[in-house]
Amino acid sequence: MVPGHEIVGVVTEVGSEVSKFNVGDHVGVGCMVMSCGACSFCKKQNEQHCSSVIWTYNSIDLDGTCTYGGYSDLMVANEKFVVRIPENLPLEGAAPLLCAGITVYSPMSHFKMTEPGKHLGVVGLGGLGHMAVKFGKAFGLKVTVISTSPNKREEALKNLRADAFLISKDMDAIKGAAHSMDYIIDTVSAPHDLDRLMTLLAPDGRLVLVGVPPEPFEIKPFSLIAGRRSVSGSNIGGIQETQEMLDFCGQKNITSTIEKISVDYLNIAMDRLSKADVKYRFVVDLETIERA
Amino acid sequence: MVPGHEIVGVVTEVGSEVSKFNVGDHVGVGCMVMSCGACSFCKKQNEQHCSSVIWTYNSIDLDGTCTYGGYSDLMVANEKFVVRIPENLPLEGAAPLLCAGITVYSPMSHFKMTEPGKHLGVVGLGGLGHMAVKFGKAFGLKVTVISTSPNKREEALKNLRADAFLISKDMDAIKGAAHSMDYIIDTVSAPHDLDRLMTLLAPDGRLVLVGVPPEPFEIKPFSLIAGRRSVSGSNIGGIQETQEMLDFCGQKNITSTIEKISVDYLNIAMDRLSKADVKYRFVVDLETIERA
Repeated sequence: MVPGHEIVGVVTEVGSEVSKFNVGDHVGVGCMVMSCGACSFCKKQNEQHCSSVIWTYNSIDLDGTCTYGGYSDLMVANEKFVVRIPENLPLEGAAPLLCAGITVYSPMSHFKMTEPGKHLGVVGLGGLGHMAVKFGKAFGLKVTVISTSPNKREEALKNLRADAFLISKDMDAIKGAAHSMDYIIDTVSAPHDLDRLMTLLAPDGRLVLVGVPPEPFEIKPFSLIAGRRSVSGSNIGGIQETQEMLDFCGQKNITSTIEKISVDYLNIAMDRLSKADVKYRFVVDLETIERA
Repeated sequence: MVPGHEIVGVVTEVGSEVSKFNVGDHVGVGCMVMSCGACSFCKKQNEQHCSSVIWTYNSIDLDGTCTYGGYSDLMVANEKFVVRIPENLPLEGAAPLLCAGITVYSPMSHFKMTEPGKHLGVVGLGGLGHMAVKFGKAFGLKVTVISTSPNKREEALKNLRADAFLISKDMDAIKGAAHSMDYIIDTVSAPHDLDRLMTLLAPDGRLVLVGVPPEPFEIKPFSLIAGRRSVSGSNIGGIQETQEMLDFCGQKNITSTIEKISVDYLNIAMDRLSKADVKYRFVVDLETIERA
C-alpha cells in the first residue's frame, strides 16, 4: 500500500463535465475521494461519516480497484472531493491542512470552540497540535500548550505565540490551572491521563480527542457530572468544511510549518520521523521523482 | 444529617419583600437554597455550577448553621430558590421532579436531545430513568429502555409506553441496535460498560451520564473519534430551567410515578429501597408527623 492523504497540486487537465476547476488552479485532495452522496450524513456535508466513504488510500474504488493515495506526480479525482487552495498560500505549507488542519479545525468549528477570549488548551505539540495553536490564536482565544516536554516551551511561546505552557506531569501547575480552560484539543496518540486533563476544564468545558491512544482511557464519572463537562472525539471534517477552513487560512495567512524534502530524502525522513525529529510535517516534492 | 431535596408544599406565610408567591401557592424546593448570584454561572442561570452554592442539606447556610433538607413540616426558603408547582399537578407526584425530573430534563434541554422522531436510549429504569422515558415520549422521541432486568420489559413497554426494550447483556440485541440511537441518558450508578453503550450511538450521538458509578469508566478512543460522538455528564439544572421543566410537566400532565407513605412507614420504606422495591419514588407525607 502506498498512502498519502495531504495532497496538493496544480490542475493539468479537467474532464468535460467539470465545472469547479480550470487548468492552472491550485487544488488539494484530503482523506476522502468519494462518498454515497445520498445518506443523511452526506446530505449534511459530513461525508466523513458516510458508511460508503472511499478513503484516499487503502479503500476499494468505484471500479473495484484499490485507492493508492497521493505519493504520485499525477492524480485523478472527482471534483466533488477536490478543494481549492487559496492562491496566496504556498502549496507545500497548505498540504498538511488537508488532514492535520481540518482534524483540529473541524471540532473547533462544529463544537463552537471559537469564542474570542475563551481559553483553549492544546495537548501535544506536533503536526496537529501546532495547527490547533495557530487556529486558536486566529480565533482570538487564549491558548495554553500542554506537553510532557519542557524543551517545547520556547517553541510554543515564542515561535507559535501561545499564551502559556504547562507541563502535564507538573501536578502543581495542573492544580494551578484547575477549571481554567473552556476547551481542550487533545492531539496525543500515546497513552495518557485524560481524567487529569479534565480537571483543567471550567464548567461546560469540553475536551475533544483527535489523537488515537492505543488503549481505552479512564474518566471518573464526577469529572463529567460536576460542571456538565464533555469528552468528544472527532475525525477530519466534511468537504465543505475543509474548503471553509482553507478559505479561513487564506484570509488569516495560516499554513502548516513544514520541511519540504525531495524524494531521495525519504529514507532519512522516515528515520527522523521515528524520532519525532520534524517541525511539523515533511512535505515531499514529487516533482523530484526520477522518471524511468 | 437529615437530608431531603425534593420538597413540595403550600405557602403558609410570605416575607414583606416576597413578590413571586402568595399564601396558598403550590411550591417546591429542590437541591439548592442559595448561590452567589454574581458569578458567570449564576448570571447564566446555572446556579448549580456556582462555587458558592448552598445545597438544601449538609451545606453551611448564610448564617453559619447547617442546612437540613426537607424532611420537615415547615421550611423557610428564599423565593429565588422556590419554584411554582402547576396547580393541575398532584403535589406528591411533582415532588421528585425537583431532583430526578430536572436531572434528566436539564441535559435533554441543554444538549438539544429533544428533536421529534430522534431515538433516545434510557439506561436504567428507576427514579431517573422512568422520568427520562416520560420526557422522551413527551418530546416526540422514539424511546428504547436499556436494562439488565428482563422483568422490566412489560413495565417499560406497557406502563411507560417506551417503544422498545433492550437487555444490556444481550450482545445480539446490542449489535442489532448498533449506531441506531441519537441520544442516550445513562442513569445507572452501578459499575457498567459505557463503551458498549457507545456502540449504540449514531454519528454525532451523545451519551449523558447522570448516574454516578463508583469507579472510573473506560472508553475506547475510537468509540468517540469515529462519528464525532460525545460523552457528557450533568447534575440537576438551574432554577429557571427547573421552573421551565415544571411548566412543561403542567402542560403535558407529567409527574413522577410514586408511592405516598406516612412517616411511620419510613423504616419499612428504607428496607424496601435497599431491595430496589419501589415504583419509582417513595414520597413521605409529612403531615403525618406526630407533634410532641
